Formats: sequence, C-alpha cells, structure tokens
Amino acid sequence: VSEVLVVGCGLLGASIGLALRGSGAAEVTLSDRRPEHEQLAVERGAGRRWDGRERAELVVVATPPGVVAGTLLELQRLEVGRTYTHVASYQSLVQHEVESLGLPQPDAVVGGHPMAGREQSGPGAAQGDLFVGRPWAVCAPPSAWPEARTAVLELARACGAVPVELSPERHDQAVALLSHLPQVAASALAAVVAGAVAEGDSLEGSLPLSLAGPGLADTTRLAGSDVALWTEILQGNAHEVEPRVRALATELLGVADALAAAAAGDPAGRAVIQGVLRRGRDGRALIPMKRGALAGAFARVRVELNDRPGELAAVLGAAAGVLVNVEDVRLEHVPGSPRGTAELLVSVDEAGELQHALAERGWIVHLST
Amino acid sequence: VSEVLVVGCGLLGASIGLALRGSGAAEVTLSDRRPEHEQLAVERGAGRRWDGRERAELVVVATPPGVVAGTLLELQRLEVGRTYTHVASYQSLVQHEVESLGLPQPDAVVGGHPMAGREQSGPGAAQGDLFVGRPWAVCAPPSAWPEARTAVLELARACGAVPVELSPERHDQAVALLSHLPQVAASALAAVVAGAVAEGDSLEGSLPLSLAGPGLADTTRLAGSDVALWTEILQGNAHEVEPRVRALATELLGVADALAAAAAGDPAGRAVIQGVLRRGRDGRALIPMKRGALAGAFARVRVELNDRPGELAAVLGAAAGVLVNVEDVRLEHVPGSPRGTAELLVSVDEAGELQHALAERGWIVHLST
Repeated sequence: VSEVLVVGCGLLGASIGLALRGSGAAEVTLSDRRPEHEQLAVERGAGRRWDGRERAELVVVATPPGVVAGTLLELQRLEVGRTYTHVASYQSLVQHEVESLGLPQPDAVVGGHPMAGREQSGPGAAQGDLFVGRPWAVCAPPSAWPEARTAVLELARACGAVPVELSPERHDQAVALLSHLPQVAASALAAVVAGAVAEGDSLEGSLPLSLAGPGLADTTRLAGSDVALWTEILQGNAHEVEPRVRALATELLGVADALAAAAAGDPAGRAVIQGVLRRGRDGRALIPMKRGALAGAFARVRVELNDRPGELAAVLGAAAGVLVNVEDVRLEHVPGSPRGTAELLVSVDEAGELQHALAERGWIVHLST
Repeated sequence: VSEVLVVGCGLLGASIGLALRGSGAAEVTLSDRRPEHEQLAVERGAGRRWDGRERAELVVVATPPGVVAGTLLELQRLEVGRTYTHVASYQSLVQHEVESLGLPQPDAVVGGHPMAGREQSGPGAAQGDLFVGRPWAVCAPPSAWPEARTAVLELARACGAVPVELSPERHDQAVALLSHLPQVAASALAAVVAGAVAEGDSLEGSLPLSLAGPGLADTTRLAGSDVALWTEILQGNAHEVEPRVRALATELLGVADALAAAAAGDPAGRAVIQGVLRRGRDGRALIPMKRGALAGAFARVRVELNDRPGELAAVLGAAAGVLVNVEDVRLEHVPGSPRGTAELLVSVDEAGELQHALAERGWIVHLST
C-alpha cells in the first residue's frame, strides 16, 4: 500500500500514520472531524491533511467503533478508496453493519484490530512504535476481495505488527475473554473498593487504604481506561462478553458461598476455595507474559540496589556490557531513595551470565525462574 | 528489642532476621520445623540457630497462620519469651485462638502483619529490605501489655517498615478488601480463562491466546500465588472476605444482565455498563500506586528507545546525572531487541527537568501526568 488515508486521528489513527511515515512505507493523508486532533496529528508528523477529494489505495477508518460503518458508507459514496479497513475493538457487529447499510462495495472492506493500546488516548499519546511486535487481528469475511485482505496484511506488517488472521466471530470470542472480561473485572473490583471506601467513610471512619499493596494496583490498573470508549466496546461485543462475565460472577458466587460455609465452621468450603485458586494458577500459566512469550521462557534476576544515585543505570549498563538483553524491569524501592530491589526479566539462557557479571561487580544477586 | 527469636524461617521470618541483622538492631535466633529451611536461613545470614532453651525479649512467630496460636501456646509453656508477636495475614481469628487456647500469658501477644510479600516463598526468596517503606499493621487488643505493643512497634521500625496501628477486626476488614478480594478476583478470572481455553480446545480449536495483552497479564498476576497458603488465609478471614466477594459477584451479574439486554437490542443496559466503568475509574483513583503515594503525585516521562544496546542504561544514567529519582520503570519493547519505549515514573516536580535533560541528549521524550 503506497497511499493511505487515515480517517480518525486518535491514538490508533495517529500512531498508524507515524508508523507508516517512520518506515517510509506509504504516503499518509489524515482526516478528523475534530480539527484540533487533525492539527495535532499533522504537527506530530503522522501525515498531511487530506483535502477531501484525493483517492487512496487503502482507507483506514480509526474512528470510535460505533461510527465506523457510517463513515465507511460516506467514504465509499465519495469513491475515495480502492480498499478499506478499520480498527474496531469488535468485528462482527461492524461487519454486519457494513453488509446491511447499503455500502456500494462492502467486499472492499476487511476489518482489522491492532492489539495495542495505552491508558492515554488522543493523537498526543500516539507512538510510531505502538504496534511493533504486537498482534494485529485481520478479519476477512469469506466474500472479501483478496486485494482488500492483502492490503490490510501489508498495513499491519508495515506498522511492525504481526498479522493474525481469524474470522470476525472468532476475533470477538477471543477478545471477549482476553481483553473485555479483564476490563470488566478490573472496573467491577475498583467499583467495589470505591463503594467500600464510601461506606467506611460514612460508618466507621475511613479504611486504611495505605495498607494496599502492588497486588491491588495491578489488578485494578485497567479500571483507569476511557469510560465512553469502553462502554461502546462492551456494548458492541455484548453477545460474546456476557457469558464470560456471567462465568466469572458464578465462580465468585461459588467462592462467596464457600467462604460463608467456612465462616460458619463448615470445612466443606475449603475444597471449593482451593479449587478456584488451583484452576486460577493453571490459567495464569497459560497467559502469555511478554508479547507472546510464556512466563517460563524467562528468568528473574533480582539485584539489591545500594543507596547510591544512578544505581539502576549502572546495573543495566553492566547487563548491556555483557550483551544481555533485559526484557523488563520491576523496581521495588522506597520513594525518594534509590535503595531497594530491581528485578530484571531476561531469557533463561542469559540469566546465569547476567548473575555472574553482576555478582562480579559487587552486587548481591538472586536468581529465580 | 535486643534479642529476637524468629520461629518459622519462610519468606517473612527469614526476611525479618535479615532486616534485623542488617540494621544491627537485634541479636536474632532462628527456629523452623523444616531443618532445610532453618539451615538455609542461617546460611543466608538471617540469624543463628536457636538452641531450644534460650530466652528472647521478643518472639516472632512467622509460621503459616493456622498454626500460630498453637505455636504460641507451646513457646509460652516453655517460658521462652518476654513478649510475643506473629505475622499472620488475618488477625481476629488468631487473637480469638490466643484468648481461648489457654495460653499462660495471652496479653503478652500483640499480632502484626507486615504488608509486604513476594510471589516466591521460602527463605531463598527472603530479602533484608522486604519491609522498607511498607506499612506494618500492629494489632494490639485492649488487654495487651503496653510493653508487648511497644516491642512490635520497635520491630516494625527496626525492619524499616511504617507501623500502622489498628484493631484486629479493622485490620481484617481492610485486608479483606485490599488484599484478599483482589486475590480471589485474579484467581477467578484466570480460572475462567483456563476453562474457556479447555472448552475451546475441545470444541473449536484453541483460542488465539497470543492476542492477550499486558492488561490480562496484570489483572491475573496474583493468580500465580501459593495455593495452600491462600486457601488458609481466605478461610481464616472468611467472615470478612465473603461479603466483599459477594459484592463483586453482584456487580458482575449486573454487568452480565446489562450486556444481555444490550445484546438483545435493549439500550437500557448501557447506563449500567457505563455506571460500573465510572465507579471503577473513581475507585481506581483512590488506590495508592506506589507505597502510599497516589497516582497523581507522579508524572510519566516516556522515552523512545533507539535500537542500540544499553539504551535504557543510558537513559537512567542521564536521569541520575541530573539527580532525578526514578520511582519506577515500565518497558514496552520487542523481545530480543532494545527498541521500544521506556516509561519512567518520577515526581511531578522533577518531570520537566528530566524531559529537558533527555531531549537535550537527543531522545524523543513525551510527558504525561
């Protein structure tokens, strides 16, 4: 694809523009109903302003999912593109709308969904490398033109992503479980915390929230997501998300009943509690930890940091010095002080070498897999 | 406290020993029923082996919570300690057992609970700095000896922790919400994923788990915790955890019903979905992000990393060079390559300076609060 029109200059649209221009893969024109978004995306280098008439080989509709099909209809009536795609978080409903709204060329549309995002939104949060190494679902219906499918595959690769082809239905089933259910779980959990805090405030003095640890922070991180966008996403994939949310509620009701039994002195609840924890541990082991790699492929090298400025920089410099690639860093330390522990995630093959190199330079190092 | 006996050399017990010996605060003796744990804790420098008769000013029982009271009874019959504490994750039930088991001196016992832990367990995972900057709940019942309470406060401070005094009941209410509920939520969510994967395997080919992003990984991290220990903790605090788990299940059933309505074309569900997302966002804003500090006190400086080894080390070195303290690092990059983005969490006051320093050295930097 050499000419791409991006309609909708939010996080995804502007990032696609930045990625395509960064790799020199295509000439990019941009359009957004909000002039300030269009302006910012142009200023950030995501492309040049679309003049409203120019044709494009591929049109990428990166609007909120609820208006994707209407936007496609409008653009096809203007005969703007040869092929079309979109980046909606749900695919079946958009595909259904594409087929039923009377588009001149519904088969020129192949939906896509880059599995990348950030908690921030808008063109200011866009990154040219947002998609690098991430999966990009490509959801061609059986009737789609082969060239439309090829164009989306090329788009995904040009953005550095890994295309994953699957039907719109299968996509929606997968994201219902892997993306939409965790969002609902995190929001509902944080809502319970909010409710308990409000109740504590009114009844018996505020709860000591300072006792919260990193576990609660991690588990509720998704609850900070955009409310309007997620309302739309959950509604748009309601059919697939509903049974998953109900399954989670059922698990939790089972635990609640088991806890009530345990609190009443009935030991039978124990097996239920243990069963959920066990199945959870098994499920956790199935979940890819870093971009497709399973947790087991990595080792954690834990380094005790001394009370010196630049300590973490020195540790990472030592890792770079022996050409060990650090996949992730987790810091546990006291605010305002560099003292603490750094956990470096590295491949199992390189962990021993890193441990040796750091220990040789005087750090106290522990290795865990 | 100058002489401390630690009974139970797991993660917490051995870490307490390391912390006390690291600060030179106390002479530490160690005891564990599992000779290999005792041996490893001694080898790691957590203290010297207890001879089974020596007296101690403070005895710290760091066994699994279910055997704390029995262990205290045994130790008091031997007249080993002047004062006693424990580190159980639930306090009311242990306190009840202390009062009902016939201990010679129940009022010499003041429970505590350091709010620190790791996914790993055992003395091999112990760290002398595990408690630094972390809250340490100190739960003195009204009848407790003042000197017992003082000894536990001193212990917490000697380990670098911040003592938080509250009643055993209030402690159990707080951790039910802030620690035990997130554990149940993460386990139940991961169990639903495991179930869906098993069902997908048998019915229609495996689910494309590669589509999972960091959101699912974060939300299920706690599901990797120790099953036996958590079964005991949830059972021991069942009375307080049960209504929280039921409240979460009820939230989720409300969302499931709203999704079912939305899937059937009824727009009334939208308000329910939006309401949970909104309350979740509000709850998320209440949760301390890094050791007591709220998310708002920090800014995120995002740096685009070039494809060079040691890039992150150079960025952190530059931060150290301008004396900016990096509170946390989040890496997003492609496995096997240093290309990607690093997000540095720094105090709002220092963010501008860091951004300037990095931009001056040629990095592309974005600032978000």
